[in-house]
Amino acid sequence: MQLDRRSFIGLAGAFGLGAAVGVPSTLAATSGFAAMAGGSSVPFYGKYQAGITTPMQDRLYFAAFNVETEDTAQLKRVLKEWTLAAERMSRGTDAGPIGAASGMPEAPPDDTGEALDLPAARVTMTIGFGPSIFDSRFGFASRKPAGFEKLPTFARDELESEQQNADLMIQVCADDDQVAFHAIRNLIRIAKGTISPVWLQSGFSGAAKASASRHTPRNLFGFKDGTANLNVDDFTETQMHLWVDRGWMTNGTYMAVRNFRFDIETWDRSSLVEQEQVFGRTKGAGAPLSGGSEFSQPDFKAKNARGELAIAEDSHMALAHPSKHGGAKILRRAFNYSNGTDRVARIDAGLLFISYQKDLEKQFVPIQRALANNDQMNEYVTVIGSSTYACPPGLAPGEFWGHQLFA
Amino acid sequence: MQLDRRSFIGLAGAFGLGAAVGVPSTLAATSGFAAMAGGSSVPFYGKYQAGITTPMQDRLYFAAFNVETEDTAQLKRVLKEWTLAAERMSRGTDAGPIGAASGMPEAPPDDTGEALDLPAARVTMTIGFGPSIFDSRFGFASRKPAGFEKLPTFARDELESEQQNADLMIQVCADDDQVAFHAIRNLIRIAKGTISPVWLQSGFSGAAKASASRHTPRNLFGFKDGTANLNVDDFTETQMHLWVDRGWMTNGTYMAVRNFRFDIETWDRSSLVEQEQVFGRTKGAGAPLSGGSEFSQPDFKAKNARGELAIAEDSHMALAHPSKHGGAKILRRAFNYSNGTDRVARIDAGLLFISYQKDLEKQFVPIQRALANNDQMNEYVTVIGSSTYACPPGLAPGEFWGHQLFA
Repeated sequence: MQLDRRSFIGLAGAFGLGAAVGVPSTLAATSGFAAMAGGSSVPFYGKYQAGITTPMQDRLYFAAFNVETEDTAQLKRVLKEWTLAAERMSRGTDAGPIGAASGMPEAPPDDTGEALDLPAARVTMTIGFGPSIFDSRFGFASRKPAGFEKLPTFARDELESEQQNADLMIQVCADDDQVAFHAIRNLIRIAKGTISPVWLQSGFSGAAKASASRHTPRNLFGFKDGTANLNVDDFTETQMHLWVDRGWMTNGTYMAVRNFRFDIETWDRSSLVEQEQVFGRTKGAGAPLSGGSEFSQPDFKAKNARGELAIAEDSHMALAHPSKHGGAKILRRAFNYSNGTDRVARIDAGLLFISYQKDLEKQFVPIQRALANNDQMNEYVTVIGSSTYACPPGLAPGEFWGHQLFA
Repeated sequence: MQLDRRSFIGLAGAFGLGAAVGVPSTLAATSGFAAMAGGSSVPFYGKYQAGITTPMQDRLYFAAFNVETEDTAQLKRVLKEWTLAAERMSRGTDAGPIGAASGMPEAPPDDTGEALDLPAARVTMTIGFGPSIFDSRFGFASRKPAGFEKLPTFARDELESEQQNADLMIQVCADDDQVAFHAIRNLIRIAKGTISPVWLQSGFSGAAKASASRHTPRNLFGFKDGTANLNVDDFTETQMHLWVDRGWMTNGTYMAVRNFRFDIETWDRSSLVEQEQVFGRTKGAGAPLSGGSEFSQPDFKAKNARGELAIAEDSHMALAHPSKHGGAKILRRAFNYSNGTDRVARIDAGLLFISYQKDLEKQFVPIQRALANNDQMNEYVTVIGSSTYACPPGLAPGEFWGHQLFA
């Protein structure tokens, strides 16, 4: 069956190989090439990890894990196995060399099989390490990046224990849900007994269909999300705001994760004008309330017909805007989620906010603090999870996830 | 923004209209036309409800509801509102005539907006009524189809209360998760206070990508699911096994829903030969263990090299095969699901089994009883939900969901 999956790979597979033999990694590791190659596979190896500047896929599985062993050698073995499996799956092949439907009949297959016949679907697997991995268990303390700690508690946080920071995380993204599930399921399987999932959240974006029609995807409040995002195609911007440039984290980045549960029912009963004032943008076009179209610069001094500020100072956009934070930008890569209904039959849905930035203290924390203190949107959301992970640089063939920690 | 959504509709919209003005309904209501139209919209009106013989979409939201009111007129009002909204959304437009981003600023919009800019994505909304709707509350008792009762309890059922039979259900399917979520969310919004969700389960199939490569989709045990399904393009077969041919349910059908939680971890540790014996098929190609390829007829008398029956009598295929049930066939339309991790950090995933059949007692119940009693697969699954719904025939313009009950 391996051939079935391989047959989808085509051009992108060649680029994956290209990255290994010296194609400039800024090209090979980022998104343009994969997109050109018909959305099939995104190279695993490269200067940067895939899944960060890769154009948003349709589906997410986010898994937070704790390490169960205190045996550093065992942890290393599993990280190596994970890396080989992730690289294989990124090419649309089985997680192991034997495959889902081959090998000794008396042995469990080394792939679970539900992605046989499916293309790679731009699947990416991105790893990050939480502050706790640098404690005394594995001898990683000296590798802890300066100042890398759990996120501070923000105003109104109502954190639920299972969504707290864990030892590490894997972000799986793909344009097909079954492919994404297959990837995280096989990684969980491989690590069984050594690294265990603490929580697992799926998400969706509508991104593939929205970008096909050249639209910015929308969150579950119905507003465009990502209009003024960091431009991953701008080298200066990514160097300034995204990629770390010192120590072993060079070409890595820091991830912030905030789980926002939306009060869908209350939002849906609020008026259009209230909704637009909360965001500071129009709902349809996504234009700033000061006028223009989606990509117009907001004018924070403009007045509306009633003589009030068109964009309220406590609107989401005004509080988060780079101009209010010394030009600080972050790369947002958030996914919508829905988890059925809660115990009182309300829709349990919201936003798994994910952002990447070079410096949490200088970029993410001040923006999030301003929002947590004053954002009009707080009336409609509850933050139930908050965590951060150090996402190392990309790998060259032969290297393994987290190898920098063992140095 | 309405224009943005409309612009995707194109050809399929014309067929929707066609159905209303007399295109033969076997063509208009079934799937071929929608598939031809580039997968954009599936006609809402027709002889049969959409979402039954429609080729499997990628995504599912299944919602079970109880009626909160005892006011029959109020129930009727909401069913009418639902019908208008469903028909609109099936064309890829907003749930209401005003739209997500228009109308009086002081009023809540009549659409929630997250599907603005997205195509119809073959969204279908299918309604069914549970046995309880025919109790004394609404005067529907005389309309209750003969013998239409809750499913019997099968061996090993471990039903959880929130997944029991409810007053009615809506099955939303689409090729985009955000479009599917938008549909069920807006239907829940419209019915608020009158008809409340009891449980809501999302699912995925990998069907769109699998059928693009001419493969049968796979379940989370990694096996093909749907190989020997009822052929919806065979008129005789659908008349014999699928569509009801008497009373107000004529051209309707009965839905059976069984929630199978998979013991993923145990399955993944079982050997390839064990897995194949459980199914009676090979894992890769999906061929019967008696030989041949995926679509070969199984030979239940063939022996393997060890002189045993190649297809064990208690394999899933042998027990469910039409030849063991007097030729009875059902239309399976099952979706995989994953709900994160459970309380002990195991993957909470499985199969939302959905089937449609003309006669539950003659078709579904005997097959399910044979499986529940003897299927080798029972070792790896737990049935946590079991329910049935009467899905009325399709509608003509001006009719509303459930109008037959009020006659």
